[in-house]
Amino acid sequence: MKNQNPIGVFDSGLGGLTVVKALRKVLPNESIVYFGDTARVPYGNKSPELIKEYSLQITDFLLERGTKIIVVACNTATALALKTLQDKCNIPIIGVIKPGVDFAVKLTQNNRIGVIGTISTIKSDVYSTELKTNNSSIDVIALPCPLFVPLAEEGWLNEPATKLIAEKYLAPIKNADVDTLILGCTHYPLLTEVIQEIVSSKIKLVDSAQAIATATAKLLADNKLLNNNIIAGDLNLFVSDLPARFETVARRFLGEKISNVEKIQLG
Amino acid sequence: MKNQNPIGVFDSGLGGLTVVKALRKVLPNESIVYFGDTARVPYGNKSPELIKEYSLQITDFLLERGTKIIVVACNTATALALKTLQDKCNIPIIGVIKPGVDFAVKLTQNNRIGVIGTISTIKSDVYSTELKTNNSSIDVIALPCPLFVPLAEEGWLNEPATKLIAEKYLAPIKNADVDTLILGCTHYPLLTEVIQEIVSSKIKLVDSAQAIATATAKLLADNKLLNNNIIAGDLNLFVSDLPARFETVARRFLGEKISNVEKIQLG
Repeated sequence: MKNQNPIGVFDSGLGGLTVVKALRKVLPNESIVYFGDTARVPYGNKSPELIKEYSLQITDFLLERGTKIIVVACNTATALALKTLQDKCNIPIIGVIKPGVDFAVKLTQNNRIGVIGTISTIKSDVYSTELKTNNSSIDVIALPCPLFVPLAEEGWLNEPATKLIAEKYLAPIKNADVDTLILGCTHYPLLTEVIQEIVSSKIKLVDSAQAIATATAKLLADNKLLNNNIIAGDLNLFVSDLPARFETVARRFLGEKISNVEKIQLG
Repeated sequence: MKNQNPIGVFDSGLGGLTVVKALRKVLPNESIVYFGDTARVPYGNKSPELIKEYSLQITDFLLERGTKIIVVACNTATALALKTLQDKCNIPIIGVIKPGVDFAVKLTQNNRIGVIGTISTIKSDVYSTELKTNNSSIDVIALPCPLFVPLAEEGWLNEPATKLIAEKYLAPIKNADVDTLILGCTHYPLLTEVIQEIVSSKIKLVDSAQAIATATAKLLADNKLLNNNIIAGDLNLFVSDLPARFETVARRFLGEKISNVEKIQLG
């Protein structure tokens, strides 16, 4: 595997672009191939079998593009398909859950950690399991917040309705005496401001996009796969469908202008 | 074609169950085969090509089940695929848009009609076109309300946040002096109460599920396809995926207990 080869990143849709944004900050000279499964988004309300099947198809596509590592930038896919992907591939594959968990365990002082995510991620119990594997004395409160994804995609990041919804969802977190809260969905970093406002500054938020970018840099270094180019890396975006609002929404997640998006049919 | 054959109904997900509910009230002795494309829901943010492809696959499946008529209980699929389906099939195919439009045109007294729906339905301009074809002097104001679908699925039918969101979405409708408002998405009838409260009783709401059920009865009668059985018709439900909350959400839409749901893989 060549060091100049790109990093592969995938997500059910555009949420994973928050991970791409974090990767480009931490590893500016790495090239990135991103696949957003916009034809089949959202994964959060689909069955485990389907999530595995879709994730395998995407991984095959990224392997064909010569990626040296694959970053699963989707909490649902990590929860339900990471092990399957790792078993089938001979390059490093990193999921978005463990880095956030490790970071949260380092941050907490009272060993009480909250997690919010999609229905499917929370139902899979993967965060609780991973947190307890890391440190069995951690108490976890995990809650689904299904309206956060459509709110982020609608761009309603600071609306009164968004605050009301967040207040209702986060009330059990506020009452659970946690000191650390994992944003267990790649869409949620867009709502950081309103979430932080509601849970108060006493609770530290863990942005899993940031955590996985740092962990990816370490994994590349450990595997001697870092790209030592001094020029900025390329970014190639692929999607399985081009929805009407793609550009607006994608730009909001990525924080830079989108260009060269290619549509690819999978499955 | 036999009169005892079932009516086929399909939707991108579970929203079309509001149409099934209306059909079972109007035509209690007809059997119904329902297909909900829960693996690929929502259609509202997908491209026209994809909607056509999915609708053709589902129609093939329903034809194999011997359906005597197909009811497209999805606004997005009707907007983007109805003509394609009608061209390819030799049984009657009815979409959810025209019946609602015809009913709204009968109701309006000031010829000013509002339409709300998904981004994709509104962007397709199909309601405006259909309304103006029916009566060229109608003025139309059409608005997307993308958060209504997740709110209905979350069951937040009367929450303060739902009211705030509806107020924001519907403000232009209130200010446009319309006297009739078409609920151009099969999820929206669940939000009738909050929508009516906000637009005031001066605006008459058109529930397109009710309208298509009445139109289907007429179309069956015109084609001498009514089932004259005196016993209650069967209801067979098929979905492309069984998401976690299927039963709860489906029951909310259908208004009766769900049984015998079969999972079918298409495409």
